[in-house]
Amino acid sequence: MKKIRYGMVGGGQGAFIGAVHRHAMALDAMYAFTAGALSSEPARAQASGRELGLEDSRNYPSWEAMLEGELKLPESERIQMVSIVTPNHVHHPVAKAFAAAGFHVVCDKPLVLNMEQAQDLLETVKKSGVVFGVTHNYTGYPMVRHAREMVRTGTLGEIRKVVVEYCQGWLATKLEDTDHKQAAWRSDPARSGIVGAVGDIGTHADNLLHAVTGLEIEALCADLTSFVPGRVLDDDANMLLRFKGGAKGVLHCSQIQTGSENDLRLRVHGSLGSISWRQEEPNALEFLPLEGPRQILTRGSAYLCAAAQKASRLPSGHPEAFIEAFANVYVGVAESINARLENRALKPLEGDFPTLEDGVRGVRFIEKTVESAKSAQKWTTF
Amino acid sequence: MKKIRYGMVGGGQGAFIGAVHRHAMALDAMYAFTAGALSSEPARAQASGRELGLEDSRNYPSWEAMLEGELKLPESERIQMVSIVTPNHVHHPVAKAFAAAGFHVVCDKPLVLNMEQAQDLLETVKKSGVVFGVTHNYTGYPMVRHAREMVRTGTLGEIRKVVVEYCQGWLATKLEDTDHKQAAWRSDPARSGIVGAVGDIGTHADNLLHAVTGLEIEALCADLTSFVPGRVLDDDANMLLRFKGGAKGVLHCSQIQTGSENDLRLRVHGSLGSISWRQEEPNALEFLPLEGPRQILTRGSAYLCAAAQKASRLPSGHPEAFIEAFANVYVGVAESINARLENRALKPLEGDFPTLEDGVRGVRFIEKTVESAKSAQKWTTF
Amino acid sequence: MKKIRYGMVGGGQGAFIGAVHRHAMALDAMYAFTAGALSSEPARAQASGRELGLEDSRNYPSWEAMLEGELKLPESERIQMVSIVTPNHVHHPVAKAFAAAGFHVVCDKPLVLNMEQAQDLLETVKKSGVVFGVTHNYTGYPMVRHAREMVRTGTLGEIRKVVVEYCQGWLATKLEDTDHKQAAWRSDPARSGIVGAVGDIGTHADNLLHAVTGLEIEALCADLTSFVPGRVLDDDANMLLRFKGGAKGVLHCSQIQTGSENDLRLRVHGSLGSISWRQEEPNALEFLPLEGPRQILTRGSAYLCAAAQKASRLPSGHPEAFIEAFANVYVGVAESINARLENRALKPLEGDFPTLEDGVRGVRFIEKTVESAKSAQKWTTF
Amino acid sequence: MKKIRYGMVGGGQGAFIGAVHRHAMALDAMYAFTAGALSSEPARAQASGRELGLEDSRNYPSWEAMLEGELKLPESERIQMVSIVTPNHVHHPVAKAFAAAGFHVVCDKPLVLNMEQAQDLLETVKKSGVVFGVTHNYTGYPMVRHAREMVRTGTLGEIRKVVVEYCQGWLATKLEDTDHKQAAWRSDPARSGIVGAVGDIGTHADNLLHAVTGLEIEALCADLTSFVPGRVLDDDANMLLRFKGGAKGVLHCSQIQTGSENDLRLRVHGSLGSISWRQEEPNALEFLPLEGPRQILTRGSAYLCAAAQKASRLPSGHPEAFIEAFANVYVGVAESINARLENRALKPLEGDFPTLEDGVRGVRFIEKTVESAKSAQKWTTF
Repeated sequence: MKKIRYGMVGGGQGAFIGAVHRHAMALDAMYAFTAGALSSEPARAQASGRELGLEDSRNYPSWEAMLEGELKLPESERIQMVSIVTPNHVHHPVAKAFAAAGFHVVCDKPLVLNMEQAQDLLETVKKSGVVFGVTHNYTGYPMVRHAREMVRTGTLGEIRKVVVEYCQGWLATKLEDTDHKQAAWRSDPARSGIVGAVGDIGTHADNLLHAVTGLEIEALCADLTSFVPGRVLDDDANMLLRFKGGAKGVLHCSQIQTGSENDLRLRVHGSLGSISWRQEEPNALEFLPLEGPRQILTRGSAYLCAAAQKASRLPSGHPEAFIEAFANVYVGVAESINARLENRALKPLEGDFPTLEDGVRGVRFIEKTVESAKSAQKWTTF
Repeated sequence: MKKIRYGMVGGGQGAFIGAVHRHAMALDAMYAFTAGALSSEPARAQASGRELGLEDSRNYPSWEAMLEGELKLPESERIQMVSIVTPNHVHHPVAKAFAAAGFHVVCDKPLVLNMEQAQDLLETVKKSGVVFGVTHNYTGYPMVRHAREMVRTGTLGEIRKVVVEYCQGWLATKLEDTDHKQAAWRSDPARSGIVGAVGDIGTHADNLLHAVTGLEIEALCADLTSFVPGRVLDDDANMLLRFKGGAKGVLHCSQIQTGSENDLRLRVHGSLGSISWRQEEPNALEFLPLEGPRQILTRGSAYLCAAAQKASRLPSGHPEAFIEAFANVYVGVAESINARLENRALKPLEGDFPTLEDGVRGVRFIEKTVESAKSAQKWTTF
Repeated sequence: MKKIRYGMVGGGQGAFIGAVHRHAMALDAMYAFTAGALSSEPARAQASGRELGLEDSRNYPSWEAMLEGELKLPESERIQMVSIVTPNHVHHPVAKAFAAAGFHVVCDKPLVLNMEQAQDLLETVKKSGVVFGVTHNYTGYPMVRHAREMVRTGTLGEIRKVVVEYCQGWLATKLEDTDHKQAAWRSDPARSGIVGAVGDIGTHADNLLHAVTGLEIEALCADLTSFVPGRVLDDDANMLLRFKGGAKGVLHCSQIQTGSENDLRLRVHGSLGSISWRQEEPNALEFLPLEGPRQILTRGSAYLCAAAQKASRLPSGHPEAFIEAFANVYVGVAESINARLENRALKPLEGDFPTLEDGVRGVRFIEKTVESAKSAQKWTTF
Repeated sequence: MKKIRYGMVGGGQGAFIGAVHRHAMALDAMYAFTAGALSSEPARAQASGRELGLEDSRNYPSWEAMLEGELKLPESERIQMVSIVTPNHVHHPVAKAFAAAGFHVVCDKPLVLNMEQAQDLLETVKKSGVVFGVTHNYTGYPMVRHAREMVRTGTLGEIRKVVVEYCQGWLATKLEDTDHKQAAWRSDPARSGIVGAVGDIGTHADNLLHAVTGLEIEALCADLTSFVPGRVLDDDANMLLRFKGGAKGVLHCSQIQTGSENDLRLRVHGSLGSISWRQEEPNALEFLPLEGPRQILTRGSAYLCAAAQKASRLPSGHPEAFIEAFANVYVGVAESINARLENRALKPLEGDFPTLEDGVRGVRFIEKTVESAKSAQKWTTF
């Protein structure tokens, strides 16, 4: 199988998530890193590209240059996909420009800064018909896919309650005042948008609960706080959720829970059983049936659903983790791109990745959260 | 040391919590089970008493008979304390009558049905001056006492966020329609009061967070649900909390989280560190400092505070659990009674138990929760 | 039901395990603490007894005085059982004397110092016909009893491998040189016998594996070490085991595993499934079937066997622990004594406690271990 | 940086570990998969290579053809390294031939079938001077490297006891009689050698304990068993270890521990502290100091040693796992190869991988184990 040629926007020296995307794409040898505009600063962009072995001619000083340069190349050499791993405010212009020009797109989350941008992007992509993935990477974990299957097949019965939490502690001090690139842009409204923690991790929590349960939020009541003195955006958020159909939920996320690392946890409670999953121990999924003992399902086991099996590379007990889950998102995107290239429909289980619509849902979630929090924490309907 | 003579109201055949109270009082040999009115049905009351070895003359058909009978005995034989372990609606009349007559009282929670009863009881006890304990038993765990000490001494810095959850699943089906005594009265407004899960377990969660952090709720926003068809009272509750001084919180409790047993968990996050404690593994307390590795503090260890040491009976690794914690509440009550009998002040660390005021706080918590839930989930101030 | 009157030998001020025995006997209100010879030093013995509320006339300066004194009392007042909680070297004379005089006996482990004493005691008890229990308390845990049932009923298939380990760290330094009573006698051959760790905890490990699996050791190969400079007796032991019928095993125990508390763990592997149990989290039993997910069985659950149900006092999620398990041993002894008093056979499930024969097995285990270790670690047959 | 061109021997369709090696080499983009002889069956070899995108001219029917073919190519195109992922009996001829011809080699474990082959290979490699790595991949985990550092810097004091266990259950039935390629060759003496479980996983356990502690075995006493009827080689092994300098150890490994997945666990106990690590939760390392609470060290944390930091790709809480650890071995090899290519010494922290000598140690371990087990389990000296 031929590798898909990709270009990357963002992800140069000092970035964290860009390297993760590259590891994820390298893992299964489905992608070739071909071009890049790796920083908004031209010099840093090109130094980064050299370090990573990009050819000079494909190592662009800016994303605009990359777009222009690649379009000049014959289709057989041109990159086929662009991976956007910049701070949030850059997502919309880059995604729009490349999608409009016919490039497939993978964009980090939160998708864009507001619903206006989201609608605009939806229309652009609808017109151009490109494949568009959003790296809500946590849904790439095999056990999350099995959790989704347990809900879909009714193993849990009617879903009544969902508790999702995303606990981090790395912003418990004013890290943005030090020379910390990640902290700096995330706490800057000009680059992060109208939210801090809610956009950075709350949207992951929202996406995870939706991906697993399929539930749609009907209304929410949110309380946002900026605990660290001098911080403008929220570093903590607590929410009550009401879903269409009557289920209820709690979502809380924070970046000031001292000592927490990346503790994303989902619990889904149905009339026949519950499940519990923690991102920090991703190879296990706890299943608590109405009767009988609690069960620990493990990745790589023969009893898992086909989607979970497909998303695994190793036998049980040989743990897989963050990069492998991230790679699964890219596998789904690659399958979709390859189906286009081969002019065929997706095969069963192919193309399993978070879509543009998932990204848009996240933007709406952000706006509704802020609307609720600003209006003296009234319930806000969707 | 002479044992304290006690009588019990409720806790006869078919009850669960009465036996726990008796085990707890037996454990340290500080109490003598001397009299009882063990059921609201006279025949069952006396059959229960015989089974438990009460003398016939102290095995009463009703609490009124017990009160009358004991008052006729010389003070040297008379019971000194009454333990009230009935359904909620019986708490107020019994507690009031015995307190007014000069008996010390231990009453199960929630204390009484409403703030009117609570005020009335406060006044009665103020007048009579008896010792009055409320069995918010989870604060009897040594590691909870150490957690309290860590907050008090500033180890966690300024408290920012508290997450407390109490997850049970035993009422995920309509158990009250079967012959299940515990489920029956808890889901009956006439005996349970205006709340179900909120009174049964939510008040424990509220008490635990207050006992450890000392924080007072300023306002809350609650969403109560009765998930099981036909159930009148709430079996699930989600709340956002705001504390005086600016801390925020999430409290959720449920009795329909299928497969959950008795999963009370508290997390406290401060500017310098966090702690996490789970009732189902009560011998450990997790401490997550701002810097450096996570620590697992264990009961029985030399580095714990004096209050935690005093509340332990065994070396570390020899686990203590529910009954021992329950017994610690009764130890504190016994110390207070003995100090009265000996006409002396409490010694350091003595008299560590949840008080009438804690019980009243729980009743207010119930009323405010219902007020918020009834008013379209608006924030309700305390 | 009338309480069984008991006397205690040992367990005075500064002792640890005596208090545990008293808590255990108090818990279920089946025993009355009536007499004592609580220390080998008469003054300390009597001070201890006064502190614990013994009547002066039953607060004896020595066990010999207690034996003599009690025999003078009418049978209706006399103690019915003696609980022996002294250092090891005192077990044999006291147990023999009281058993010969017709008192029921509960003796701590290891039972006696050598097989000669063991045989002598066996004969004495055979003659007098008293009830004789040995406090291998870990078999009192409900989940251990359920593990035993799983083996008996064939759920695990044919047992192939057993791994039992008992890890402690409290003797990692020369604690016996400080004023530490427990460390002092355990490291003194005159009081502890020919072994240290092997007698103190290795015998528990051996008893646990036998109680659960029923397997008999055919041969063992042992390596004993005294790691702490100047210590005479072993503080660490590693052994390979071969059982009659072909199963194999590993047993290791140590008191120098720094930071370990009381980490007794048993794993049993059969052709159809495995189980794993840890004393420090005693309310759970892990079951790993040949196929399908791992299961976590929990104390108090409806699916457990009758023996486990009977040994529980609380619903699942309300943890029970060390004292409750200890108390279960005493419940079994009390049932046996009461059956004798009522001149009847035991009812089903009654009388479930470690017997004199279990104690003797432990003494043989000690002797064989030392025999193997002394002979250049050759395999030693039983 | 230019990618290192590699060829693979073994690892075609139906193999498991070959894909792991390829994922591991892909992850960090340091290697280019350039040639292969992917199966001992020529047709399968070439079908596998086509599937994986090898050019036809580099997709060889046999390793001999690959050796011959590559040597014909100019050095600038020729593969630089060969990765050997065949069944055990093929390791020696392939490794020897390629090493002798000047190719760098990475070989799976156990290195070769016996000490004669090992000596022969040592001499060959000494002569040719190529880089030679052995994929004892578990030492690639960052927390294992930190454990090693804790021992080296004396944090644990003098090492007294090591317990290492490797528990699997996948061979609890006679899987080799089904169409299971992995089971088939591992249980066949002609392809696996004189041991089964001991070679497959016991050598990993031995390597792990040596890598972390530096301890050398002085003598061992082993008990090997073939539990599954009809199986020739051991599927279970229990051993006592004595190390030079006086430390003691227990090593047990098994492939019949029903329900166990890949449960490699190491515990090291020193005079000042202990550590515990489990492969199935590889991002944590437990540290139990002589005094004070247990600590959970986590990968990605700032307090870890430089070697652990270097071996991490992600921040703490973003778990890394098996493939990443495997990749770390290949990173070390690549650094060594690149240093040769650049004619320079290794930089600090570079070249951290298990060497040929480690592989030879594993072969000696196998021979000594069998020697002990065959001689009626006598202690066998090294």
